[in-house]
Amino acid sequence: MEKKRHHILKGNISKWDLDTPALLLDMDVFEANLKKLSEYCRKNDTAFRPHIKTHKCPIISKKQISSGALGICAAKTSEAEVMADSGIRNILITSPVITPYKIKRLMGIRKNTSGLMVVVDNVKNVTDLSEAAKRDNLKLDVLVDINPGEDRTGVKPGKPVVDLAKNILKSDGLGFRGIQFYAGHMQQIHGFHERRKRNMECMEKAVESKRLLEKEGIHVGIFTGGGTGTYNIDHNVPGFTDVQSGSYIFMDVEYLAIGGKDSPEKLYEDFAPSLTVLSTAISQPVKGKITVDAGKKAFATDGPNPVLKGISGIPYEFMGDEYGGLTFENPSREIKIGDKVEFLVSHCDPTVNLYDHYHCIRNEIVEDIWEISGRGMSQ
Amino acid sequence: MEKKRHHILKGNISKWDLDTPALLLDMDVFEANLKKLSEYCRKNDTAFRPHIKTHKCPIISKKQISSGALGICAAKTSEAEVMADSGIRNILITSPVITPYKIKRLMGIRKNTSGLMVVVDNVKNVTDLSEAAKRDNLKLDVLVDINPGEDRTGVKPGKPVVDLAKNILKSDGLGFRGIQFYAGHMQQIHGFHERRKRNMECMEKAVESKRLLEKEGIHVGIFTGGGTGTYNIDHNVPGFTDVQSGSYIFMDVEYLAIGGKDSPEKLYEDFAPSLTVLSTAISQPVKGKITVDAGKKAFATDGPNPVLKGISGIPYEFMGDEYGGLTFENPSREIKIGDKVEFLVSHCDPTVNLYDHYHCIRNEIVEDIWEISGRGMSQ
Repeated sequence: MEKKRHHILKGNISKWDLDTPALLLDMDVFEANLKKLSEYCRKNDTAFRPHIKTHKCPIISKKQISSGALGICAAKTSEAEVMADSGIRNILITSPVITPYKIKRLMGIRKNTSGLMVVVDNVKNVTDLSEAAKRDNLKLDVLVDINPGEDRTGVKPGKPVVDLAKNILKSDGLGFRGIQFYAGHMQQIHGFHERRKRNMECMEKAVESKRLLEKEGIHVGIFTGGGTGTYNIDHNVPGFTDVQSGSYIFMDVEYLAIGGKDSPEKLYEDFAPSLTVLSTAISQPVKGKITVDAGKKAFATDGPNPVLKGISGIPYEFMGDEYGGLTFENPSREIKIGDKVEFLVSHCDPTVNLYDHYHCIRNEIVEDIWEISGRGMSQ
Repeated sequence: MEKKRHHILKGNISKWDLDTPALLLDMDVFEANLKKLSEYCRKNDTAFRPHIKTHKCPIISKKQISSGALGICAAKTSEAEVMADSGIRNILITSPVITPYKIKRLMGIRKNTSGLMVVVDNVKNVTDLSEAAKRDNLKLDVLVDINPGEDRTGVKPGKPVVDLAKNILKSDGLGFRGIQFYAGHMQQIHGFHERRKRNMECMEKAVESKRLLEKEGIHVGIFTGGGTGTYNIDHNVPGFTDVQSGSYIFMDVEYLAIGGKDSPEKLYEDFAPSLTVLSTAISQPVKGKITVDAGKKAFATDGPNPVLKGISGIPYEFMGDEYGGLTFENPSREIKIGDKVEFLVSHCDPTVNLYDHYHCIRNEIVEDIWEISGRGMSQ
């Protein structure tokens, strides 16, 4: 039913002829972003394991792997299932997998997939995973998740990491592969120099934990973490192996605002915005304003407001679930009823999670349609 | 693919055994809400035309019609398509349908559906709809959408309403049926008495417009508007025909806070919350807090935060796309890793739009699974 409902137009169709709201991906910009991270990592002798929670699309995962990624990260078991079913290997699930039913789903993936890994942050979970692996006669690789101070998941740095690693090492069915230290709260610190300083300080706790593990003779093959905001900082951390950047392929208004390398006042332009929402002006109830057909069901609402692409002086505000309002403060061009306009999205990940397809655009033409098969896979 | 990914458990399954996050619908509460609006309207000799943008589920639309609804409202053309395909008739599209492509979709529905109506708020759109209807040899019924002061859609009250109605009356292929006056900004005014006072004042503009139309000999068969916050106020407006309540079947934290009839300090309890999200505690990085597996992709973020159901003293905060944090301030019970908890949702409409299914629960057992076929239908 759902596929039928999306009027999929392909071939020599202009993006301006698409029905709206529609999620667009500028292919040239997207490909440049892919290449930029890949080349940066190669030059700096580090690796990347991109997070697919951003795009939820196996086609994009495969492009990331072709560009040199070690494998991928998935936030949830159900996302990993979608990726594994598409033939993708070397998947790291970056959240603890708790409850017997979810562990059963995890083992279902493990049966058919090589290179599956999951993070753990408590002893009971180690026991549960070990028992499930033994029952299914499988070997499951795990990383110890370390709390970087964000208090979301992870064991405390230092001795608790060593204790949990030892526990894993003596558990049948499990393999200890290393550590995850994802400092989410460092990704969007404003200004590169401040971000670098605080991130390097924060990562010190992971370095110390790794040192303690090695002192005990425990091999730490993987030291993964970081994201789009720290991809060019993390590789300077001793022993760090791979960065989990996700947003770099799309960018969004939130990331643009974190400040560039040369100046915190400038936009963060290491990567360029490739993801937009196409919307139509549908009503003009008062002069000086116009209403578009994209509201809270077309854009994530947790970040700054969406921003018009290529048009200045016309801020957007949410006007309910189905509408947005544009105010002509100092407009660089006119917008009339029936006109289509493009918006840079506020926060890319939850915006993508509202759509079923990317319309892939090159030179304003719809080149392809990619299914967001992992949409809604929050389990 | 998507259906396969949702591990659908049915039969004698307890809701506590469902994988999470999952959207639950308490059937007893839902049915009581259905009945309450229906009985209220019958007693007060008024009608209701519920808005399906809230639930996006044909099964629920049919239950609303069985409970006495005149028909349904849909916000978008693509939502109306889903409903029409399920055999539902008498659909009012409550937003202007602009652009040739969208009008073609609209006429596609009209071909196979009786009682389709759409609102209009500008002359150019009247011309476009008239031409499309003539081309397809169809008759399309329209309502004039009046701007209630929210400046989102609609013509100004008074003479502009009469001018547009006259334009419709002389346009081949179109039928003028009446007016829509949806005062969205009145729905959540805190305290019943204040809400009633301001809503009645606001509705006066619609009453005056209707009077002007009738003075010109134009019959106004439909005067639709209002919602869950004003369902028990609007029928006192002279000439008002039907209320567009949507949220009444589910309720949410936002609506609960608008204040009851007896006291603005009390919760709004005309309808009771039937919609919840089931989530699992997956990590406890620090004492006094615990992390659950439901974040910005499991709850809409535009309203107040979600609230635990049946447990007090433990506020929720968003911790990124995949996680929420619970703080044990004054907990009425313990929550441990692996425990499942239920949340009242912040804002029901955009929360539903994140999920593909309702798990229908009665006496804690999964009685049925209803597909949210209109999810993502924002076009």
